[in-house]
Amino acid sequence: MQGQAQQQAYDRGITIFSPDGRLYQVEYAREAVKRGTASIGVRTSDGVVLAVDKRIRSPLLEGTSVEKLHKADDHVGIASAGHVADARQLIDFARRRAQVNQIRYGEPVGVETLTKEVTDHIQQYTQVGGARPFGVALIVGGIDNGEPRLFETDPSGTPYEWKALAVGADRGEIQEYLEDNYDEDADLEGGIKLALEALASVNDGGLSPQGLGLATVDGESESYISLTDDEIEEYLVENDLLADETPEDADTEGESDDADE
Amino acid sequence: MQGQAQQQAYDRGITIFSPDGRLYQVEYAREAVKRGTASIGVRTSDGVVLAVDKRIRSPLLEGTSVEKLHKADDHVGIASAGHVADARQLIDFARRRAQVNQIRYGEPVGVETLTKEVTDHIQQYTQVGGARPFGVALIVGGIDNGEPRLFETDPSGTPYEWKALAVGADRGEIQEYLEDNYDEDADLEGGIKLALEALASVNDGGLSPQGLGLATVDGESESYISLTDDEIEEYLVENDLLADETPEDADTEGESDDADE
Amino acid sequence: MQGQAQQQAYDRGITIFSPDGRLYQVEYAREAVKRGTASIGVRTSDGVVLAVDKRIRSPLLEGTSVEKLHKADDHVGIASAGHVADARQLIDFARRRAQVNQIRYGEPVGVETLTKEVTDHIQQYTQVGGARPFGVALIVGGIDNGEPRLFETDPSGTPYEWKALAVGADRGEIQEYLEDNYDEDADLEGGIKLALEALASVNDGGLSPQGLGLATVDGESESYISLTDDEIEEYLVENDLLADETPEDADTEGESDDADE
Amino acid sequence: MQGQAQQQAYDRGITIFSPDGRLYQVEYAREAVKRGTASIGVRTSDGVVLAVDKRIRSPLLEGTSVEKLHKADDHVGIASAGHVADARQLIDFARRRAQVNQIRYGEPVGVETLTKEVTDHIQQYTQVGGARPFGVALIVGGIDNGEPRLFETDPSGTPYEWKALAVGADRGEIQEYLEDNYDEDADLEGGIKLALEALASVNDGGLSPQGLGLATVDGESESYISLTDDEIEEYLVENDLLADETPEDADTEGESDDADE
Amino acid sequence: MQGQAQQQAYDRGITIFSPDGRLYQVEYAREAVKRGTASIGVRTSDGVVLAVDKRIRSPLLEGTSVEKLHKADDHVGIASAGHVADARQLIDFARRRAQVNQIRYGEPVGVETLTKEVTDHIQQYTQVGGARPFGVALIVGGIDNGEPRLFETDPSGTPYEWKALAVGADRGEIQEYLEDNYDEDADLEGGIKLALEALASVNDGGLSPQGLGLATVDGESESYISLTDDEIEEYLVENDLLADETPEDADTEGESDDADE
Amino acid sequence: MQGQAQQQAYDRGITIFSPDGRLYQVEYAREAVKRGTASIGVRTSDGVVLAVDKRIRSPLLEGTSVEKLHKADDHVGIASAGHVADARQLIDFARRRAQVNQIRYGEPVGVETLTKEVTDHIQQYTQVGGARPFGVALIVGGIDNGEPRLFETDPSGTPYEWKALAVGADRGEIQEYLEDNYDEDADLEGGIKLALEALASVNDGGLSPQGLGLATVDGESESYISLTDDEIEEYLVENDLLADETPEDADTEGESDDADE
Amino acid sequence: MQGQAQQQAYDRGITIFSPDGRLYQVEYAREAVKRGTASIGVRTSDGVVLAVDKRIRSPLLEGTSVEKLHKADDHVGIASAGHVADARQLIDFARRRAQVNQIRYGEPVGVETLTKEVTDHIQQYTQVGGARPFGVALIVGGIDNGEPRLFETDPSGTPYEWKALAVGADRGEIQEYLEDNYDEDADLEGGIKLALEALASVNDGGLSPQGLGLATVDGESESYISLTDDEIEEYLVENDLLADETPEDADTEGESDDADE
Repeated sequence: MQGQAQQQAYDRGITIFSPDGRLYQVEYAREAVKRGTASIGVRTSDGVVLAVDKRIRSPLLEGTSVEKLHKADDHVGIASAGHVADARQLIDFARRRAQVNQIRYGEPVGVETLTKEVTDHIQQYTQVGGARPFGVALIVGGIDNGEPRLFETDPSGTPYEWKALAVGADRGEIQEYLEDNYDEDADLEGGIKLALEALASVNDGGLSPQGLGLATVDGESESYISLTDDEIEEYLVENDLLADETPEDADTEGESDDADE
Repeated sequence: MQGQAQQQAYDRGITIFSPDGRLYQVEYAREAVKRGTASIGVRTSDGVVLAVDKRIRSPLLEGTSVEKLHKADDHVGIASAGHVADARQLIDFARRRAQVNQIRYGEPVGVETLTKEVTDHIQQYTQVGGARPFGVALIVGGIDNGEPRLFETDPSGTPYEWKALAVGADRGEIQEYLEDNYDEDADLEGGIKLALEALASVNDGGLSPQGLGLATVDGESESYISLTDDEIEEYLVENDLLADETPEDADTEGESDDADE
Repeated sequence: MQGQAQQQAYDRGITIFSPDGRLYQVEYAREAVKRGTASIGVRTSDGVVLAVDKRIRSPLLEGTSVEKLHKADDHVGIASAGHVADARQLIDFARRRAQVNQIRYGEPVGVETLTKEVTDHIQQYTQVGGARPFGVALIVGGIDNGEPRLFETDPSGTPYEWKALAVGADRGEIQEYLEDNYDEDADLEGGIKLALEALASVNDGGLSPQGLGLATVDGESESYISLTDDEIEEYLVENDLLADETPEDADTEGESDDADE
Repeated sequence: MQGQAQQQAYDRGITIFSPDGRLYQVEYAREAVKRGTASIGVRTSDGVVLAVDKRIRSPLLEGTSVEKLHKADDHVGIASAGHVADARQLIDFARRRAQVNQIRYGEPVGVETLTKEVTDHIQQYTQVGGARPFGVALIVGGIDNGEPRLFETDPSGTPYEWKALAVGADRGEIQEYLEDNYDEDADLEGGIKLALEALASVNDGGLSPQGLGLATVDGESESYISLTDDEIEEYLVENDLLADETPEDADTEGESDDADE
Repeated sequence: MQGQAQQQAYDRGITIFSPDGRLYQVEYAREAVKRGTASIGVRTSDGVVLAVDKRIRSPLLEGTSVEKLHKADDHVGIASAGHVADARQLIDFARRRAQVNQIRYGEPVGVETLTKEVTDHIQQYTQVGGARPFGVALIVGGIDNGEPRLFETDPSGTPYEWKALAVGADRGEIQEYLEDNYDEDADLEGGIKLALEALASVNDGGLSPQGLGLATVDGESESYISLTDDEIEEYLVENDLLADETPEDADTEGESDDADE
Repeated sequence: MQGQAQQQAYDRGITIFSPDGRLYQVEYAREAVKRGTASIGVRTSDGVVLAVDKRIRSPLLEGTSVEKLHKADDHVGIASAGHVADARQLIDFARRRAQVNQIRYGEPVGVETLTKEVTDHIQQYTQVGGARPFGVALIVGGIDNGEPRLFETDPSGTPYEWKALAVGADRGEIQEYLEDNYDEDADLEGGIKLALEALASVNDGGLSPQGLGLATVDGESESYISLTDDEIEEYLVENDLLADETPEDADTEGESDDADE
Repeated sequence: MQGQAQQQAYDRGITIFSPDGRLYQVEYAREAVKRGTASIGVRTSDGVVLAVDKRIRSPLLEGTSVEKLHKADDHVGIASAGHVADARQLIDFARRRAQVNQIRYGEPVGVETLTKEVTDHIQQYTQVGGARPFGVALIVGGIDNGEPRLFETDPSGTPYEWKALAVGADRGEIQEYLEDNYDEDADLEGGIKLALEALASVNDGGLSPQGLGLATVDGESESYISLTDDEIEEYLVENDLLADETPEDADTEGESDDADE
């Protein structure tokens, strides 16, 4: 809608409004999110599911070190998409806030409360000068008083609550898949199945355990559990989503969790 | 009146005056307000009504998490339009000021006092460098000594008192509807009817409870009450404003409460 | 005298001198004053009169909330023209200084002293970087040891004392009217008449009480008194200045007290 | 000597050197001084005389509020030319330094000492970033140990001592008049006559008391004395300099003490 | 994909997002890494190997002073590539953190913990204004509870864990060699052989001890050991990689560890 | 050697290096020095001589107030050339350092020590941002343990020791004269003669006492002595250098000690 | 390789990376080093030799005041090339660090330790904003536990250890001479001979004692010794390097130790 030249006027120095009321630096940060591989969150009747796509650029890279799934507290997990180093800052912030809450009030922090503390922190970086916005989106999932809750934080610092959502590359397509197939009454098993199928919908040739991350927070134990490669493989086999072989790098150009490389 | 090139000269870095005495960053922030869906406030003989339009971009998004209605204090509600993350900052500011007032003076803060503390805070961001203005307008409604009061804060930091007003998208049309149909003697029920009709006047095909937010502060209880979807649906049925089905996203381009996406 | 391009060089960032020794940001702030509706001050033998023009853009807007008349202290009133939110900052500053004076010296602050504390504050914003000048002019009127005094503050931070003056839109025409008709021996009644006639001289079709503000500080009671709509109407009828109906918005383009909208 | 384009390169942000070793912001501040009406200082055998030209833009403006003559201490007066609001800052600074000196050393501050404290203060605004230079020149006159002394401060922060000098508009012509007619042996009466004649030399049609300011510090009383309009008129009559009527604004374009309007 | 002109818009002052969501300053810092000679890390079953290529621009330069291998703690070594002076800052930071950990918790810092403290430090320089990113990549190798671990830090502040990796000049080619020849079951001897062969794969004519650095941390002693020139020569002879003579400078243009010269 | 356009790139904001390793702001500050009239220092066998050229732009200006000769301590004098207000700052700095030394160590500060404290102070203004360099050169002359010493400080902050030197306007010509005529064995009388002749070599028509300043620090008394106009006249007569009449302003364009006017 | 226009983009304000990973401000600072006359360091079996070329622009300038050789501690000397005022800052820094070390640990600071404290200090000026890099290179020579050591610091903040090196003008040619003629077994006498011959290799017509500086730190006394002109002359005569007469300025254009003049 607007030419390149005009946009350039708004992306130097401080984050300011464009004549049509937009914050370009925030919008560019959203592009940084899209450059990262997809992350998915699904809320089920008895818990939340977090699933992440991890493209491994070299067989010598340890897949576990591609950080897209994080335990924020015993009962809260966070999946991220976008600039990895920025995500680490927000995860650290969330963990500290969870600890402070535990110490101050003697009880676990609420998932919604935690999400909003994070988004308020993000907002500061879009209004006050001397720093750039965070180039990352988070999916925050956990249990609030026995209730599964699922939130999103975006680079503008706005919190949203979702039944199921995708962030990162191919968000549009995956979200569509989720909307078409989401079932509110499904349980964790069903949520895992939906998340994997949604990821598979944009990955021709199936999925491999090494290229995935999967975690759950169930309503009973209220505990964050990260699944092993073997457990993930079992789910893939069960749902007939297992790739014949490790996917090639060829078709992944432009998407990566190796920061913004 | 002025070309694009000249305007660009004034929107970098600090908020400064243009040769004709305007503050472009503040005007651009007003554009950010217009990018948000509409919010409406109506003062009635026995209370105030706040109604907000919420476009839900995905059926999987929890409508309740689109924050446009906020309880600032027991007797004060705030509806916002524009940049959601900015709104959260101002709401937090208002809540803290209300608490401070209660603690210091042992009584609830006046609605006018609270509004002006917020606008003075907003003004600082338009004069002192190192930050951008707030891209949000607020409607502050509540009860002062039994009297219903209704205020607006705009991005310049100016406070206004209104009988009824709209902010955000389609402000012009809705305000016109309000001017044509406002009745000073109407009670809360009448105020709710007016607010819903005004919203419907710019939404072809009727309204849906999920796409709306409705709250009141009545003069008797002096309490902020947020209506449930069922209660909203009742009002819509009663006034023959209920949409046949959930509105499509198609006709909502450019307006959103998902921040400035 | 100078082209647009050259002016642009001086209005970025800090307030600095142009080659011909002018401060453009200060001059642009004066334009912001002209964008506001007119305010008038008249000094009479027994007091001072402050009168303000308030254009109400909607019948639903409470005219009383368009702040152009302010009580700074028991014996001092201030009328403003220009950027409303900026005016509020200066009024707050003036009120605090008046209180500090009362507490420190046990007596009311002098009108001249108060004015100069305000102008010195304004000057700081024209010399030190990191902020823009105030886009507002004030008329400070009150009683010093029984003597009526009337001052102006402008965006450069210069104080002036006047017998009668106008600031804001149509300043030139109104000031001319005042010069032609001012009578040093007139009393408060005469001063009110002069102020209303001066305002009417630039408003075809007469004045309406809702569109005006009127206040006095008389030398006897040394008290700031704001007149009610009924009292204003009485004066308008008495002087044959009452409009037949509420003035339309049509002819007020470019002038507004709704900040710099 | 240099083109417009090149000059523009040096007047943004901080005060820096041009390739030929000049400080443009300081030179532009000197232009601001020239935009103000003239001020004159004359040192006589028994005191100093300060005379200032005040153009009154409206008959309703109180001439006494056009501040160009200031008492800095009992024995020191200051006349200013240029940006009025800036002058006020320097006068305040000088008064505080005079008080501090009195308190610390139990004796009046020396005129030279005081001048140099002011110029050192001015210099800071030409070297350290984040502020613009002062757009004003001061004439500091007083008695040091019985000796009349007369100093100038300019926007670069350089102090000069003079027998007689003019600053502000028409400096060149008036200074020439002073050089041609200065008599070292003249007394205060002679000094007043010289100052008025010098002012009259650039004002066709004579002078009016309302358009002038006159003050002396005599060596005997060592006291700053500001002359009344009647006393000034007496001097004008005596020296055949009284204008037939109040001078018109017509011929004063570009010179003003109403700040940089 | 983007022209030069557009890139220039993003590399001034603060590190900000480009319209496609990239951080150019971080990408340029990656170029600084590529300008440095290669460094290699190999994890083996019983320890980690660090090998670095050192181009010596003059026979009078002491090869030992070209700092590319650093002992961070008894059980942790770091190899660097890129801007040497920046590397020193990060090594110092890592050493201080290792000491603090020892003092606070009475045990050696974990290799992963240490790496992430360094990457979080690096991230700050990519988000907060007033400084540039670090132009260096580090390979952090050591023993965690008996387990060999090998990490990479890049200029964006992202941590990765590797089985074997190369950073700096010719990264692509060397990494390919490592991928083709890596054997998870190899021991330290095998790791040293792989590292030297990988380096030799991009150095025609063999390697010289003076142009290399080699260090190990074995799982048993958990101690960082830097090999002498004689020991390196032995390995080169053993693996038939010894150059006939000292390599000429001729073919090394553009790669250097002499900072960014 | 370089075009105007390119130079402009280096003279904004902070003092930075040009591609050929120069600091333009420092070089421009040297131009400011050349804009000032000449100052000369001569070291003799028994003391140092400081001589300064003072162009008086008006007969009403007190020549003594044109500050180019300063007593820094009992045994140290300083002559300056360039921006007068800047010189005052450095002289004040030198005086304070001299006092601090006396207080701390109970003995007079060394001339070399004092010079280097001044140059280190000057250097700070060429490296750290937020201020411009000093536009002045100083000649520091005095006695160190009975030895006459003569130093120069330039705008880069470099100290030099000289036998005899000139700074300011016509430096080249005067320095050449000094080189041709300097005699190491000359005493103070000879030094004064040389200094005056050197000044006269660039002033056609001779010198006048009012246009000069002369001071000595002799090795015996170790005291700074400023010569009176009568004493200077005696020297001029003795050396046949006295001008017939006061020099006209006509031939002095571009050189001035009235700051950078 | 890159055009002028593009380079200009990287040399304003802060030191940042260019698209090819270079720090232009650091490279320009290296140019400032080349603008200074050459300095040489030679490590011998029993000590270190520092030799510097001093071009004296006037016979009246005291050669000893051209500071290129500095005693940093009893056992450490430093030779510099480039911006003289910057060198002084680093020398002062080194001296303070040496003293601090002596006080804290009761023993002389190591030459390598001292060098690295200096380079870390230099690095800060290349990464953090608000200042420019140091435009100077240092040769640090001394004795560590009886061992002669010789280091270089460059404007990027990288430390190097050398057997023999040159910095400043003609570095390339002199370094080549050193490489061709260096003998590791030579003693101090041989080192002095090499240094002088290397300097002579780029000075047609021989060397003069006044244009040179020579210092040694021998391994036995571990003391910095600066040679007198007579001693230098002896060495020149001995090695048949004495110039017939003082070298003319003519052939030295562009090289100078008079800062960046």
